[in-house]
Amino acid sequence: MKTTLVKSLFRETDKFIDKEVVLNGWVRKIRDQKNFGFIELNDGTFFKGVQVVFDQNLPNFADVAALSISSSIQVVGKVVKSQGAGQSFEVMASKVDIVQKADLEYPLQNKRHSFEFLREIAHLRPRTNTFSAVFRVRSVLAYAIHKFFQDQGFVYVTTPIITGSDAEGAGEMFRVTTLKLDKPPRSADGKIDNSQDFFGKETNLTVSGQLNGETFCAAFRNIYTFGPTFRAENSNTSRHAAEFWMIEPEIAFADLSADMELGEAMIKSIIKYVMAECPEEMEFFNQFVEKGLFDKLNNVLNSEFGRVTYTEAIDILKKTSKKFEYAVEWGMDLQSEHERYLAEEHFKKPVFVTDYPKGIKAFYMKMNEDGKTVRAMDLLAPGIGEIIGGSQREDNLEILESRMREIGLHPEEYSFYTDLRRYGSFPHAGFGLGFERMLMYITGMTNIRDVIPFPRTPKNALF
Amino acid sequence: MKTTLVKSLFRETDKFIDKEVVLNGWVRKIRDQKNFGFIELNDGTFFKGVQVVFDQNLPNFADVAALSISSSIQVVGKVVKSQGAGQSFEVMASKVDIVQKADLEYPLQNKRHSFEFLREIAHLRPRTNTFSAVFRVRSVLAYAIHKFFQDQGFVYVTTPIITGSDAEGAGEMFRVTTLKLDKPPRSADGKIDNSQDFFGKETNLTVSGQLNGETFCAAFRNIYTFGPTFRAENSNTSRHAAEFWMIEPEIAFADLSADMELGEAMIKSIIKYVMAECPEEMEFFNQFVEKGLFDKLNNVLNSEFGRVTYTEAIDILKKTSKKFEYAVEWGMDLQSEHERYLAEEHFKKPVFVTDYPKGIKAFYMKMNEDGKTVRAMDLLAPGIGEIIGGSQREDNLEILESRMREIGLHPEEYSFYTDLRRYGSFPHAGFGLGFERMLMYITGMTNIRDVIPFPRTPKNALF
Repeated sequence: MKTTLVKSLFRETDKFIDKEVVLNGWVRKIRDQKNFGFIELNDGTFFKGVQVVFDQNLPNFADVAALSISSSIQVVGKVVKSQGAGQSFEVMASKVDIVQKADLEYPLQNKRHSFEFLREIAHLRPRTNTFSAVFRVRSVLAYAIHKFFQDQGFVYVTTPIITGSDAEGAGEMFRVTTLKLDKPPRSADGKIDNSQDFFGKETNLTVSGQLNGETFCAAFRNIYTFGPTFRAENSNTSRHAAEFWMIEPEIAFADLSADMELGEAMIKSIIKYVMAECPEEMEFFNQFVEKGLFDKLNNVLNSEFGRVTYTEAIDILKKTSKKFEYAVEWGMDLQSEHERYLAEEHFKKPVFVTDYPKGIKAFYMKMNEDGKTVRAMDLLAPGIGEIIGGSQREDNLEILESRMREIGLHPEEYSFYTDLRRYGSFPHAGFGLGFERMLMYITGMTNIRDVIPFPRTPKNALF
Repeated sequence: MKTTLVKSLFRETDKFIDKEVVLNGWVRKIRDQKNFGFIELNDGTFFKGVQVVFDQNLPNFADVAALSISSSIQVVGKVVKSQGAGQSFEVMASKVDIVQKADLEYPLQNKRHSFEFLREIAHLRPRTNTFSAVFRVRSVLAYAIHKFFQDQGFVYVTTPIITGSDAEGAGEMFRVTTLKLDKPPRSADGKIDNSQDFFGKETNLTVSGQLNGETFCAAFRNIYTFGPTFRAENSNTSRHAAEFWMIEPEIAFADLSADMELGEAMIKSIIKYVMAECPEEMEFFNQFVEKGLFDKLNNVLNSEFGRVTYTEAIDILKKTSKKFEYAVEWGMDLQSEHERYLAEEHFKKPVFVTDYPKGIKAFYMKMNEDGKTVRAMDLLAPGIGEIIGGSQREDNLEILESRMREIGLHPEEYSFYTDLRRYGSFPHAGFGLGFERMLMYITGMTNIRDVIPFPRTPKNALF
């Protein structure tokens, strides 16, 4: 007889009432009376477990009653309407086969565990309510992103993880090497001979796929990347990880306004998809992780995102009576407190801030006519601050090369990038979305270590 | 007026006939007579370009007629039924705005270029027919894989790229480090002090996400990974890259037979999806890249995959009159020539070979009762040989630990993995699919460097 998934039992209960089913799964909870007992069986396919009732008619009643948490079992039984509170059906077991009785040292007994403790058992924590919800939503969110772009014909590009490009100024990089650290080859002048490394030169882990992505934008018009990126920064905060995933769409024949439209449509689409596909998990987050999560997300879905220039935003911040830790001045980078004030208190909805001073933005952003600002945008959202950042790209070869020289880059080392401005240059724009940042926003989880299956942070690369 | 995508023009031509449209894109071809001319305009959204007809009514006729290949333009014009052969419609331009006239040194003028040459301009090659087809199919294939698993409720797991685990025996690894190669810190005994590295220990790039994936299988029942993996092997062949993507599903309460069913269903589903979504690209491959590609793929779709044990396969190979370079003997690893004989000449369809000698397979594969073979499977396909490899996993703690010791691994270093056999062990199985290998199979491309946007191979990490 074929196994039934617990998800099907919950989603199509009526189909199964008074029918016999075979279930596989793990014991999440168990309690027994003298003559009968209850098992909460979770098979991983659904957030909730199913209640299995067993009694002395089982030939192995004593063994079943003595099962430990996390034991694996197979149950044959009939689905019946339940009298009990909290569930509409239960399974009356006619047979319980014990696959393996779990060791009693299983660390996830039925009590609350701190997230810190659970990080140390990252291989077991997805078996808890919180982390099963987090990682199922992670999976569905990833798919929602692919679906959003693919449905519109965007081409998915996997940009290289190992990169030979010099630092693009986006952050500290990890070296990738096959040289023996103990005795690396050296050239005559005593320097490390990188020509003997695997790729014949120094290589690092990528910090962004954008520049490579742009080359594909020039061929496919609309593209997106979705892959791991890295920062070798010694930041031990709840928002930083050394390894995280990023989404970077790039659209051709598009200006900053089209870029913002895309960002707004994407954010709304992926939130909607997750709320529709993971109602039980989202309900759990709303109740137990972030009170008011639904209000926050519905406000995003139902708002038309605001748009304001950086210069206007500075004015707003200067005029408010609110006191900030960092004084507000044109030319400064907005601090988290400023971003959250704008989104949460002033606009009360997500807002794009555009046209930042060139000094605080990347070289590839398109210069405005004023010569002082660039066509950049950050999306600030209530409850988190910056959530995506993007720009229209500089498509004028001369301006781009002079911007590169200004900040000490050698245009000739980026000829693959500047070529795009030689051979049919075109207005284009894009943005970056930190996948984990979005996941934290949607789930209400506050530490990036708790939304990555096996997080990598300074001094930690467990499992 | 809103821009129309070339893809829409081709897919819904009737909607546009006798209507005015605005198109953006790049000049793929151009030829002009005295009073009029033709531009093949490609906007990246579709494999084919649209024919734009322009004449002396354009105020900038001379400039347009002098456009170079790859120039970017915007065209306003009327869609009309075409008299010409090879297209059903064309666009009569009333206006052509030149966005940028491409530099005449553009390397992709209208002649054939070798794949070798095109690899050196990996940033431009997606603008050619072959590579636009390859990389669009790559994108659609990636999505087909996600869709196949998500539609069945599988949870997508991003396993870590940077791993602190010791080599799992799957291949040579790249070191990831922030230590200064020039002067790494050393401990008192003169050895490299890895405790001062970023993660407090030696770390490498992952060779497989399987072991991590299994931990999530124990929580979600059915999971898959899809991410980059690495091999620091100095193999300069058409089949090896240092960086490639892998898909590794893992299913719980499943044996080797269920694993094969999943593999067969996946292969058929993703081929079907790509053929349906990319008809123009697939037609191109069938005509110009691999004659008989459709026959090969249709044979896969229409066959029930064979199943044969390794021992039976050895018998078949011994009995044939066919001469092999490598002599056939029980215990040997099958060579490509053997695999292809089995799939192409004997079975004439994809065939699973199962139950390999333990000596040539990984430690985590479930031991058969004979004590000599393990529940492994390789899927051999006509035209390529091995395409997926998988196994049922050893779920018995004692047998697993003794297998680990046999090959020199220390079980205590893999406690996160052996824990799965302590806390509710369960029969489970999975397999690995090399994404690029599948892409080569579907497109007929024969060099892995030509299916990866920016390939990484020994001495090469361009762009």
